[in-house]
Amino acid sequence: MKKPQTIKTVSGMRTLSRKAKAAGKKIALVPTMGYLHEGHVSLARRARKMADLVVASIFVNPAQFGPDEDLDRYPRDFQGDLQKLASAATDYVFFPSVRELYPEGYQTHVEAEKLSRELCGAFRPGHFRGVATVVAKLFNIVQPDLALFGEKDFQQLRVIERMVKDLNFPVRIIGVPTVRDPDGLAMSSRNSYLSATEREHALSLSHSLFLARELVKQGETDPKVLTERARRWVSQNPEARIEYIEVRDAETLEPVKKIDRPCRMLLAVWEGRTRLIDNVRLNPKNN
Amino acid sequence: MKKPQTIKTVSGMRTLSRKAKAAGKKIALVPTMGYLHEGHVSLARRARKMADLVVASIFVNPAQFGPDEDLDRYPRDFQGDLQKLASAATDYVFFPSVRELYPEGYQTHVEAEKLSRELCGAFRPGHFRGVATVVAKLFNIVQPDLALFGEKDFQQLRVIERMVKDLNFPVRIIGVPTVRDPDGLAMSSRNSYLSATEREHALSLSHSLFLARELVKQGETDPKVLTERARRWVSQNPEARIEYIEVRDAETLEPVKKIDRPCRMLLAVWEGRTRLIDNVRLNPKNN
Repeated sequence: MKKPQTIKTVSGMRTLSRKAKAAGKKIALVPTMGYLHEGHVSLARRARKMADLVVASIFVNPAQFGPDEDLDRYPRDFQGDLQKLASAATDYVFFPSVRELYPEGYQTHVEAEKLSRELCGAFRPGHFRGVATVVAKLFNIVQPDLALFGEKDFQQLRVIERMVKDLNFPVRIIGVPTVRDPDGLAMSSRNSYLSATEREHALSLSHSLFLARELVKQGETDPKVLTERARRWVSQNPEARIEYIEVRDAETLEPVKKIDRPCRMLLAVWEGRTRLIDNVRLNPKNN
Repeated sequence: MKKPQTIKTVSGMRTLSRKAKAAGKKIALVPTMGYLHEGHVSLARRARKMADLVVASIFVNPAQFGPDEDLDRYPRDFQGDLQKLASAATDYVFFPSVRELYPEGYQTHVEAEKLSRELCGAFRPGHFRGVATVVAKLFNIVQPDLALFGEKDFQQLRVIERMVKDLNFPVRIIGVPTVRDPDGLAMSSRNSYLSATEREHALSLSHSLFLARELVKQGETDPKVLTERARRWVSQNPEARIEYIEVRDAETLEPVKKIDRPCRMLLAVWEGRTRLIDNVRLNPKNN
């Protein structure tokens, strides 16, 4: 297993991309914040199948963290990340410093305004603006033909798709299904924050979503019934703090009154000091 | 003189750019709102010298007009524009509809936040956001190696440069000197709004700037003295409404206390129903 080559500068990355494109190579980008898990690796593996050159970026993006969030304690393991990316035959790791991406005088932002205020955006003001901005930068630096994002961060996926469409980025966006631990917990770098007890309680997130999916399969079409049932399940642990549990249109993420088209149930719940998110597809019975 | 070929769709423009780039051609973009004058033509001529393929865009961008501004009466002359671009040997004109660039559900914006609130930005909220957004879109659609902007819209030039730097667009920005009528009036599509009397009064804009430039040549270094003199000159016409007359750092557009580095005097003045802008370089005597 050959370790991917590390590139730290914008100019280095740009030179490499320019050469690859001049040679007619297809470039895939896997943007990450590092501390990779099997979810990330599945993105890298998928990228490997779709492109000639696979670039993963590792950048803990300050612009997408709020002032009271976990930027300072966000977990990091660069050597472990390189190993995992090597196992997926990733060619390059773009690993810039904060100063490299946000130099003195930096002041430009990109925002998909409507989508950014919904769901997680309502609780994390500026978060999706930070995400859209750094992804726009990565697209301009790496110039990928395609970029892969996990469905675990479903709203992020929709924000990126919207930005790409609205700003006409020549990049194809690929959403890749959430990877879960065998007991159902959605993989997340933030799971490393959880104590054993918290992790056990955290199972209620995915399980409440699976319950909703099952009810829809059985014919339930009322979002209120589903969110109420999910809310009750999660609340069995009295310490869980629910930010939101919602059913939305799977494309626009707008609220729905009835599950009569592809929908998504999404939630954000705090277990102790750890904020977790998860979501599942809800397809109406005869769709 | 061969007329440039017109392209109306994003996909058509994209296909053309992709082919040109695959063939190793250098692409120059001249973004305009049409109703072209000699200033625009000088951009196109300069582009012709610097690139293999010259694309001019003509798009009256609603996003950069305020609700009470002149979007509806902005002058248009597509056939005349084609003639003028032909004279500069422009290859293609990208001429999309509003619907083509801002389809249903559009919601993404790009903003260089600090620069966008200064000077014209203070009087035209959202203007530079609209400019930055449409230019980001044009860059993604046309994929130019370089793009040319007139210094007449000096703050716009700085906003674009900032956006390109901050978002890492792989585009070189070229600022081209303002073209003036023989009597000094800066060329502008909006000059067509002026009555004969207004046009005569409007000469005070460039003349007050030339006065300031002359005073600096003679050793004046106090911005207040310069703006006061310019203000007095423009106010000789009691109907002129001055929005601002300011001396700023030529790079950052931040206020300066002394002209001890390259500066710029910029102004915006209403003559009747017409808002005019102009600016000149102020270089300190021994610089």
